[in-house]
Amino acid sequence: MNTLQSIDYPIFFNDSLTELVNFIQKGSYSRFFVLTDENTGKYCLPLLKEKIDNFNNFDIIEINAGEESKDIDFCIGVWKMLIDFGADRKSLMINLGGGVVSDLGGFAASTFKRGIDFVHVPTTLLSQVDASVGGKTGIDIDSIKNIIGTFTQPKAVFIAHEFLESLPDRQILSGLAEMLKHGLICDAAYWNKLKESNLSHPSQELIHRSVEIKNDVVIADPKEMGIRKSLNFGHTVGHAVETWSLMHDEGDHLSHGEAIAIGMICEAWLSWKKIGLSEAELNEIVTVLSGLYPRYVVAESANEELYSIMQKDKKNQNGRINCTLLAKIGQYSIDNICTEAELCESLSYYSTL
Amino acid sequence: MNTLQSIDYPIFFNDSLTELVNFIQKGSYSRFFVLTDENTGKYCLPLLKEKIDNFNNFDIIEINAGEESKDIDFCIGVWKMLIDFGADRKSLMINLGGGVVSDLGGFAASTFKRGIDFVHVPTTLLSQVDASVGGKTGIDIDSIKNIIGTFTQPKAVFIAHEFLESLPDRQILSGLAEMLKHGLICDAAYWNKLKESNLSHPSQELIHRSVEIKNDVVIADPKEMGIRKSLNFGHTVGHAVETWSLMHDEGDHLSHGEAIAIGMICEAWLSWKKIGLSEAELNEIVTVLSGLYPRYVVAESANEELYSIMQKDKKNQNGRINCTLLAKIGQYSIDNICTEAELCESLSYYSTL
Repeated sequence: MNTLQSIDYPIFFNDSLTELVNFIQKGSYSRFFVLTDENTGKYCLPLLKEKIDNFNNFDIIEINAGEESKDIDFCIGVWKMLIDFGADRKSLMINLGGGVVSDLGGFAASTFKRGIDFVHVPTTLLSQVDASVGGKTGIDIDSIKNIIGTFTQPKAVFIAHEFLESLPDRQILSGLAEMLKHGLICDAAYWNKLKESNLSHPSQELIHRSVEIKNDVVIADPKEMGIRKSLNFGHTVGHAVETWSLMHDEGDHLSHGEAIAIGMICEAWLSWKKIGLSEAELNEIVTVLSGLYPRYVVAESANEELYSIMQKDKKNQNGRINCTLLAKIGQYSIDNICTEAELCESLSYYSTL
Repeated sequence: MNTLQSIDYPIFFNDSLTELVNFIQKGSYSRFFVLTDENTGKYCLPLLKEKIDNFNNFDIIEINAGEESKDIDFCIGVWKMLIDFGADRKSLMINLGGGVVSDLGGFAASTFKRGIDFVHVPTTLLSQVDASVGGKTGIDIDSIKNIIGTFTQPKAVFIAHEFLESLPDRQILSGLAEMLKHGLICDAAYWNKLKESNLSHPSQELIHRSVEIKNDVVIADPKEMGIRKSLNFGHTVGHAVETWSLMHDEGDHLSHGEAIAIGMICEAWLSWKKIGLSEAELNEIVTVLSGLYPRYVVAESANEELYSIMQKDKKNQNGRINCTLLAKIGQYSIDNICTEAELCESLSYYSTL
């Protein structure tokens, strides 16, 4: 699998942990910090330790697993640990984990002393095909996702297939939603290939293609002025449902991919309703997603709150909700303004499936 | 006075508030936010209101005056107000105030929704000749100055002489320290001109020259990889003394310029001691600065803590203290490593003056 070149950094796929060791040895860094969470600290950090000789020189910063750790309070905690450990401007931050680790670690690094270098070692399927590429960093305030962040590119991304082997099925499914989205927004052939594949163990080739699609989009539009908005398909409704679940579901809540799958069904319906997605393709999308993801009950009484969450979405302008929809499978359409009534109706559509 | 062009934005000097109105009218911004502090809200905001017709559409965010407002907690307060006011990505932040307002407002804007546009309207001499130009934003954690920040350029800077008229003498002196520094590091003729001028009312021409010097340096080195470090002359010791005063002096504490004046005396002494600044020029610098700035007692017992503050300085690498010194008046020298003993000796020199 060939190494991809992003805006100004490489994305490695082959023997990536060895590439990481090379990167560390070649660089002139003064200090190394590894950001992990309790899971990656247990399951992934040992693989890194095996590869790196002088690992005692590395300082480990461990956060709790879960979206809650992306809150500004935890970010302050990371900054204070960097201060206490004596991190200087020539330090390197290695983000070893899923999207929470890379988003938070990227933001903390991009603002510490006005920016230190960081690399991503994504350990979940979701972060391999989504968060680790594209240079978005972000943290949450009051459960508003990524409300604070920067556009800062990592110095390299190391995608290692071995991390996926220990991943629970539900986490594989979570990443799969973004892969399916990549097909839906700009590659019908890839969408068809995914449909025919063993999706509980996505191959390295499929992952490589997903990263390639995302990478092409972000190279063309690093700061989300235009076509990068294509990646938001499913995310207007999906983010709102995800935030709602995080705030209200006790114990277990929706994974990112589960929420985005709901969002993609609602926004496929909006695409049919508003911009001419065919009924056959709407049904195809719904059949595939409903076959993969569990049913989730979104009570009608939640609509008001869901809409209010959508209004805080970064993609809006002048308070109007801006959705990315599909003209057809493989062809996105950005900047479609949707009304509260339409958005609620799309949620009703999902509920009646 | 000609408009200066910085990295990718203009710096206006003539009729600047009218230029600001033009900028607002020409832009396609959806919302306007003015960040002020209690002083600029009282003395400077009315001048803005007079110029702008539909000022009712502007949301005002007011912070307390003083360095304490640059703490991360106040930054979170600004972010939350932007959320509550419904700021979107097409919003403009207008930073009306001194360095605290521009550093904090620039950081809050550069990270809100991954970055909204901002402009600076500096209202103190210090912020006109220093903070408003160069694209550094920053906030403090645990009184460590600018430990968190970004390099993000404003969209424009509006330098209006009329704001200086109501400024207390002590605040004029605070800005003057940076102007004197500009002469010392790279323009001996300008240093001589300053010596002969009425420094309690620096002319627009002198201010223009200072901004021009700073602007030339930051254009050549936006991210402080090399020559921008020239601007750090006086700031290694100066920042430490300033932080120390902020933490320990009850009630009134050192202004930035007063602290930098002490720092420049100490670092001029280090320049004489280490890299050959002549004794005559050392004495000239000391005479000018001692004539302008009040004596401040730095107790010898503070040395340990001052050194520990210097060790946290962003400019260091591998824990070694990196100073910018002077080879002669008008010629800086970067990356001079100074030992704890040398730094303490420079403070003793200041104390015995």
